[in-house]
Amino acid sequence: MSNAPPVESQKPVEIEKIVDAFDSSDEAKIVAICREAHPGDVEEAFERLDEPNREAILNFLPVELIAELGDYLPAADMEKRLQTLPEEDQAEVLDSMSDDELVDLLQEVDEEERRSDLIELLPEEKQVVSEELLQFEEETAGGRMTTAMAKIHEDETVGEVLQSLREKKEDTEILSRIYVVDGDDRLLGKVRLRDLAFSPEETRVLEVADRDLTAIEARADQEEAAQMVARYDLLALPVVDADGRLLGVITHDDAIDILEKETTEDMERIGGIGGERGDLAYLQTSVTGHVKRRFWWVLVLAFLALASGIIMFAYEDTLKAYFVLAIYLPMVIAAGGNTGGQSATMIIRAMSLGELGPQEFRRVIFKEMRIGMILGGLLGIFVALQIQFLLPDGVVDEGISVFRIAIVVGLSLLAQITTSTLFGAILPIGARAAKLDPAVV
Amino acid sequence: MSNAPPVESQKPVEIEKIVDAFDSSDEAKIVAICREAHPGDVEEAFERLDEPNREAILNFLPVELIAELGDYLPAADMEKRLQTLPEEDQAEVLDSMSDDELVDLLQEVDEEERRSDLIELLPEEKQVVSEELLQFEEETAGGRMTTAMAKIHEDETVGEVLQSLREKKEDTEILSRIYVVDGDDRLLGKVRLRDLAFSPEETRVLEVADRDLTAIEARADQEEAAQMVARYDLLALPVVDADGRLLGVITHDDAIDILEKETTEDMERIGGIGGERGDLAYLQTSVTGHVKRRFWWVLVLAFLALASGIIMFAYEDTLKAYFVLAIYLPMVIAAGGNTGGQSATMIIRAMSLGELGPQEFRRVIFKEMRIGMILGGLLGIFVALQIQFLLPDGVVDEGISVFRIAIVVGLSLLAQITTSTLFGAILPIGARAAKLDPAVV
Repeated sequence: MSNAPPVESQKPVEIEKIVDAFDSSDEAKIVAICREAHPGDVEEAFERLDEPNREAILNFLPVELIAELGDYLPAADMEKRLQTLPEEDQAEVLDSMSDDELVDLLQEVDEEERRSDLIELLPEEKQVVSEELLQFEEETAGGRMTTAMAKIHEDETVGEVLQSLREKKEDTEILSRIYVVDGDDRLLGKVRLRDLAFSPEETRVLEVADRDLTAIEARADQEEAAQMVARYDLLALPVVDADGRLLGVITHDDAIDILEKETTEDMERIGGIGGERGDLAYLQTSVTGHVKRRFWWVLVLAFLALASGIIMFAYEDTLKAYFVLAIYLPMVIAAGGNTGGQSATMIIRAMSLGELGPQEFRRVIFKEMRIGMILGGLLGIFVALQIQFLLPDGVVDEGISVFRIAIVVGLSLLAQITTSTLFGAILPIGARAAKLDPAVV
Repeated sequence: MSNAPPVESQKPVEIEKIVDAFDSSDEAKIVAICREAHPGDVEEAFERLDEPNREAILNFLPVELIAELGDYLPAADMEKRLQTLPEEDQAEVLDSMSDDELVDLLQEVDEEERRSDLIELLPEEKQVVSEELLQFEEETAGGRMTTAMAKIHEDETVGEVLQSLREKKEDTEILSRIYVVDGDDRLLGKVRLRDLAFSPEETRVLEVADRDLTAIEARADQEEAAQMVARYDLLALPVVDADGRLLGVITHDDAIDILEKETTEDMERIGGIGGERGDLAYLQTSVTGHVKRRFWWVLVLAFLALASGIIMFAYEDTLKAYFVLAIYLPMVIAAGGNTGGQSATMIIRAMSLGELGPQEFRRVIFKEMRIGMILGGLLGIFVALQIQFLLPDGVVDEGISVFRIAIVVGLSLLAQITTSTLFGAILPIGARAAKLDPAVV
């Protein structure tokens, strides 16, 4: 008989089915579907619930299901539910979580005392790991890494290593992250299980190791780590301290999470949405929460637009005399916003994808200037022609030169679009240069 | 002596160093750094070159380097370079590429004849695979999958499987994707190398297999496949035909590529950029290329803004009588664009993250309506108060009620923002319901 019994995996279940079960308020049905479905699917169904509903459902899920979903549900919800449990159940849930998710949950706890209490519920080994991981800022490689990996000493033989790994084999993730270190824990390379399995037992592990030292420092930004995983197609990226000592790994699935989160932030900034999204999905966020994140920019942009209004007002006499200009004013204003948005979008995305470095900034600005001039020139010519040849009779008072109006509107569009395109590019580049987040502006 | 010699990996090299080498035009230096650096870094440095420079560099890189970079460089560039090579070198490059990247390159070739010529250069086995993969649309799971996996029959024993895998062990990727199939090639489950390595030789593989049937149909959208990889934290997702027969896999690194590409598309649509980005990075795209993708929307939005202008013009008498309204017109116009953009961004991103299903659309629209009313109400009150109490003397002609102006502007903002917020949400939802890409609108 094999000592690895066949595993019946949790099946993917259509999210709609889980949501329907949630909506039914039938406790038995909900528990059953949460047990059957993959935790990833349950997580996604939870993303469609508002806070009272999430709380209600979590409150009647049995502890063993809470433990299983621990790595998947929002940390704040988990912490809330933990508070309702007796200590031994809290300990069970915490112990079942992977160390990186556990640390996310601990970071969610604001009260120092409550956090210590939670840590004390953990087995000693996990206490040490948690304390270590908590030292790193949340958004750094160290703050996102897991210590679930196998660290083996350079002098060990293939046989010795296989023997020790055999004991860990139920820990599914570890065996795809086997690293060789020296006596000081410094990273020397990585070993794949296949190289061990297919090599003579007496071989020293370093001989079959891939001396790949690709790693990231623990204090580096998590986005940099995720980009390295993407660029080098890694399963896991080792995280080291300043002396090259192996501390943990960033895994391929964490990299996807990080990239998704950073991309969401970029998009929200481009869309004029402020603040942090945090853990919560769109439907999980309350109306007040949404309003808070949007109102600030609406207000700022409204008062910026007031500037255009004041300029317009200052030219009262001109505008009243050449009232046909009023037709084209909204166009000039909108074209500025639109083209600035276009170039900002392009540059922010290119920076996030690592396509642009500081060396390229001059070229980018020069390029956007040319693009802006061409866009502005084209639209300017288009609209000038329209004014010159397609303006209905009676729109322009007698005695006013249509040709002059066409030239003025055309040139305004050229100037407005060139400037806006240029600024759309300069703002994110300037923010990056000033070491701010490029998408904040 | 081990039969797996230690591998000296290509090291990560700072992109800036590679770019500097490229800029130096020193052929020996460029070849040396391309040899030393990880292909992922070379790819990123290539993203900073325009077309003539890419062509120049590719043209003097030796064939063995072209072969090594084949999976990383833009397919169009690769195909151009191939045309300059003698047939045997073309064959070497093509044979070194992974099957999914090879198919991307073949899809890049427009001429039917040239494509057949390229396929004929391949070893027979790869010809068959390529022809098979070419049958799937480029943006489907089938079009993105690779056939680099191990397929084993349910009746084989652990010993037999290990023996046959031993021969493939140099193929680094395959051993993390071992699937068990029945006599008709139908997927029965997956096996991890560790389960084989640590099980008795005479065990039948099905006994140690994880009967996980998570898979995606070949004709499904690639984005769906990538989301499944992300949701279930998979290393590889099996791709099957309508009868459940195993055809290939989507890997974790492909999933990242797909998600990055889809996200870029979403962001570009939100930013008002049309068309397809294709393979090329920002700097790789010519000024004309950029203008082409932006001008269409600039033009459409400009003529939409013309509508506002025409409405303004129609109220010539009112506007001339209450000219103070001109101050607030740009604000009302801009607030519409900004709040519509906010809600469109939120909804498009939430849909891409799989946070919203058709069941939720009514709730979303109701939610955005409330958000819009609150945002519009708040800004309306703010601005009305500003008009009532902070308007400088002389701005409003005598005999005109400031209070009425405040009410009119406030209500306009409320109406404009509520409508825009609602439409910003309805447009992407409507597009999804009409089965269009939600980010196209």
